[in-house]
Amino acid sequence: MLTRMSEHDAPPISRFPVPELDRLPDDLRQRILAVQEKSGFIPNVFLAFAHRPDEFRAFFAFHDTLMDKDTGLSKAERELIVVATSALNHCLYCVVAHGAILRIRAKDRLLADQVAVNPAKADLTDRQRAIVDFATRVAIDSAAITDADLHDMRQRGFDDDEIWDIGAITSLFALSNRYANFAGIRPNDEFYGMARA
Amino acid sequence: MLTRMSEHDAPPISRFPVPELDRLPDDLRQRILAVQEKSGFIPNVFLAFAHRPDEFRAFFAFHDTLMDKDTGLSKAERELIVVATSALNHCLYCVVAHGAILRIRAKDRLLADQVAVNPAKADLTDRQRAIVDFATRVAIDSAAITDADLHDMRQRGFDDDEIWDIGAITSLFALSNRYANFAGIRPNDEFYGMARA
Amino acid sequence: MLTRMSEHDAPPISRFPVPELDRLPDDLRQRILAVQEKSGFIPNVFLAFAHRPDEFRAFFAFHDTLMDKDTGLSKAERELIVVATSALNHCLYCVVAHGAILRIRAKDRLLADQVAVNPAKADLTDRQRAIVDFATRVAIDSAAITDADLHDMRQRGFDDDEIWDIGAITSLFALSNRYANFAGIRPNDEFYGMARA
Amino acid sequence: MLTRMSEHDAPPISRFPVPELDRLPDDLRQRILAVQEKSGFIPNVFLAFAHRPDEFRAFFAFHDTLMDKDTGLSKAERELIVVATSALNHCLYCVVAHGAILRIRAKDRLLADQVAVNPAKADLTDRQRAIVDFATRVAIDSAAITDADLHDMRQRGFDDDEIWDIGAITSLFALSNRYANFAGIRPNDEFYGMARA
Amino acid sequence: MLTRMSEHDAPPISRFPVPELDRLPDDLRQRILAVQEKSGFIPNVFLAFAHRPDEFRAFFAFHDTLMDKDTGLSKAERELIVVATSALNHCLYCVVAHGAILRIRAKDRLLADQVAVNPAKADLTDRQRAIVDFATRVAIDSAAITDADLHDMRQRGFDDDEIWDIGAITSLFALSNRYANFAGIRPNDEFYGMARA
Amino acid sequence: MLTRMSEHDAPPISRFPVPELDRLPDDLRQRILAVQEKSGFIPNVFLAFAHRPDEFRAFFAFHDTLMDKDTGLSKAERELIVVATSALNHCLYCVVAHGAILRIRAKDRLLADQVAVNPAKADLTDRQRAIVDFATRVAIDSAAITDADLHDMRQRGFDDDEIWDIGAITSLFALSNRYANFAGIRPNDEFYGMARA
Repeated sequence: MLTRMSEHDAPPISRFPVPELDRLPDDLRQRILAVQEKSGFIPNVFLAFAHRPDEFRAFFAFHDTLMDKDTGLSKAERELIVVATSALNHCLYCVVAHGAILRIRAKDRLLADQVAVNPAKADLTDRQRAIVDFATRVAIDSAAITDADLHDMRQRGFDDDEIWDIGAITSLFALSNRYANFAGIRPNDEFYGMARA
Repeated sequence: MLTRMSEHDAPPISRFPVPELDRLPDDLRQRILAVQEKSGFIPNVFLAFAHRPDEFRAFFAFHDTLMDKDTGLSKAERELIVVATSALNHCLYCVVAHGAILRIRAKDRLLADQVAVNPAKADLTDRQRAIVDFATRVAIDSAAITDADLHDMRQRGFDDDEIWDIGAITSLFALSNRYANFAGIRPNDEFYGMARA
Repeated sequence: MLTRMSEHDAPPISRFPVPELDRLPDDLRQRILAVQEKSGFIPNVFLAFAHRPDEFRAFFAFHDTLMDKDTGLSKAERELIVVATSALNHCLYCVVAHGAILRIRAKDRLLADQVAVNPAKADLTDRQRAIVDFATRVAIDSAAITDADLHDMRQRGFDDDEIWDIGAITSLFALSNRYANFAGIRPNDEFYGMARA
Repeated sequence: MLTRMSEHDAPPISRFPVPELDRLPDDLRQRILAVQEKSGFIPNVFLAFAHRPDEFRAFFAFHDTLMDKDTGLSKAERELIVVATSALNHCLYCVVAHGAILRIRAKDRLLADQVAVNPAKADLTDRQRAIVDFATRVAIDSAAITDADLHDMRQRGFDDDEIWDIGAITSLFALSNRYANFAGIRPNDEFYGMARA
Repeated sequence: MLTRMSEHDAPPISRFPVPELDRLPDDLRQRILAVQEKSGFIPNVFLAFAHRPDEFRAFFAFHDTLMDKDTGLSKAERELIVVATSALNHCLYCVVAHGAILRIRAKDRLLADQVAVNPAKADLTDRQRAIVDFATRVAIDSAAITDADLHDMRQRGFDDDEIWDIGAITSLFALSNRYANFAGIRPNDEFYGMARA
Repeated sequence: MLTRMSEHDAPPISRFPVPELDRLPDDLRQRILAVQEKSGFIPNVFLAFAHRPDEFRAFFAFHDTLMDKDTGLSKAERELIVVATSALNHCLYCVVAHGAILRIRAKDRLLADQVAVNPAKADLTDRQRAIVDFATRVAIDSAAITDADLHDMRQRGFDDDEIWDIGAITSLFALSNRYANFAGIRPNDEFYGMARA
């Protein structure tokens, strides 16, 4: 049976039904319990997707292959793309949750807020700025990208796998930002203060 | 071994490597051969994703669960969402390919072009217009969606599964449009004239 | 006597009165019968303008001097400008009707849809791209055009008559697109499938 | 023989050739001499169009049928539409020249500047505001106009001829503004101070 | 006691209370009487700010230090910045009032209207154009300004005090334009025709 | 003597000269030492303005009269306006510094980030939302504000002093955001983590 997770004073974590853990398919429950064990809490995105097991599986399959890779872009660079483009889409969930992850991955307590508010004023290396600039184009004006843009990225030292990854991660969070925005997925309070000290 | 698919005069189908079919993982090759048998040709999106098997699998898992469902939204309504929002993103691949599918699914040879050029002038029923309007908001201004918008959709007769599906399909093609745009995925010539008569 | 042309199930061809042919001034009726004989049907724009004979005459005088010229820009190039800029203005009538004419004039069954959806992904020659780029500026940001833009076009090999024609055709369809949009002029069904095979 | 009209210090009145009066076709020369006699100077738009007699004729035929009519909209209301929409298009020629005409036609020395800078702060009657609002939609978002907008205008007391005229005048100056902007047509100095006292 | 200054037919000069002169603090009254003696009338901005003496003092302190300086930028250049950026913000008060001052300071009866309608078509020197271009960026896209933009201005011959002044004046009128717009401050009729002959 | 404050590795706090404290006018130095004593550090905005004493004085006079008032809007509401509108202007300094102050004033560790990323998803009361909505209009579309907007605010329970204050604070930070953006004023590292626990 499904229940909306908005008991008492706590604001709802989604505008759509959130199933109870023990009624989920095994693979979903296992994944959720694993992340809870690792993080100490369950990020709401897992609960918000759980009423749609196939979309849950497809989304996290996409996520894992693009965000957990060790070659090419670093994990911090991958999170940098997420924060920069999610800010363009005004996605509260992704900016807050991935902002925390970026602080951890980049071992930098300023970068996430800088990039979320104004990348032009952020402390970015040339490589990071090229990543953010290309991701920005994919996020808000992908139709205008031409062969010349890819040539330009190659000139700046990116190989095809890295360029594809920047485009792919931006595309995945174009999806994720819209899901979070229409479903009203609320970031867990824990993310806001994480890795601030 | 990988090869770019741009021999002779034929324009390339992607800016990224396109593997030969017989070097693909079995599940990808099976899927591709099945669609080729059904359609008479291989839609280029299958070839463009093939160099990234995990993203291929995640993308088509997403696609199948959202586009092949028979309950709630009709298949024609699902394609209508794709064409309307892909036009907003100026995604040539998706407008041309899914325009053809919409003509077939809706048994209407005018609707796809109308929606791609200007939904306000398209021959839409009230239900279709509500779908296109909500999808448009998710596509271009998802951050502004509030509880009131969902309440409004429920007032217009949509249940939560239908509303989620409109949002989810729009989100998936926000991803798909950006992939096609940065990778320069070319629509097969076959799509343009399909179901025109 | 005037009558709205929306009998039975057929959607209206205009939001404004459409006169009967035999009540039109002779020159208008002759022009309309001539185009009907040539095309096999009467394009709705002729009927929609007919209740205003002076505007009908001025519009088609403008049209004929700019679109039927044989020197400088080719006729296919002239139609390319119309389709590209009418798509920017989301004018269903002009994209559909002139899309058909462009397929015929350019002997190309893909170009019109490509340009309407996303010129950056269209199969354009360098000359065609320069034409579309300048027309785009006239259509959406004419105020910013400076002497340097004209100098740039001359450097790309266009003479003054060609540059004026690009600007003039774009200006004429800025007018035409707005008329069609406020008056709700409906493209004839015949245009959609024309020259597709 | 043609000559550019930019002798000595005087800034050029157009980026394109300006023919000498005595080499023009008779009808153009008569029209120009008549306006010179009436105004005391030749408005530069006449000279800028003169190298293209057919476009000259079509443009002024359009102009005369829409701007010199005495029924329905008043002449001041027609000029109000021109100034409001030309300001949206940042057309220096039309704002300055028609601003002068509006001051004269409306017998109001403030209205033209108010409307050009910010219609929301202009001293407009309810009828004038409805005209400017509809013209603004035709000028910048004509694609979104629906039957409901026309119904709304009829509710505000406008008949179909008046609504068409608002749309048509806006459309004509969408053309005129773009011509003036790409051709760099310079407003005569005389217009700026006209009817100011 | 406060009174709204909208007696009889005269349109109100502000949407907020306008105090009587003899109830103002001495320093405000002295300032207002001085400007009245110099100009022959009291510009409405003085009256509109008067119900908030501390904001009155801060605003005119800012104004005087930035607009009455004799070194670096000329006074005409300072007014040019005000007119150009106030037009971008559609501030009727500032365009009309400072347009008049610009005509006087620059001894040019065309420049203010040109800049207000379309700077690209205004008779600007290279130095004036660089000033207007940088001010435009500060007015509408200040977040994107980088070190490279300041380097570029220095290359064009501006020193740091001049660059700061362009930025500061634009910032002050970003404030002033918004005050005038939300408070509905009406420009005095006297400004429109000033220095036109 | 002036010196740029960018010794060693520390990023510069401004693109313009930053004077040494002991060379400042007494009133500026006193103000700066007072804020240092209270906060434990000198917020960079004080240093960035110090090379222009008159602008320093005018800016902080404006700031104090609008931000330190106890009547009408609460101090937390005043900071809410600053964070919301500074985020619209992508002003890193103001979002980070005033975000910290908002966390303190509102005794809420989530609100500042929520409002900076997406006010539509922030935990706002109806009164707070009305404040943010009106401030947003003043920040980005002040030209369109009419009497009806003020009437609407009064209907929602705001008196004229509160409405003026919302408009005035938004206007002041329209100035402040642009100064910080063109001058590249860097937020102190201390602000990011303040009041997070």
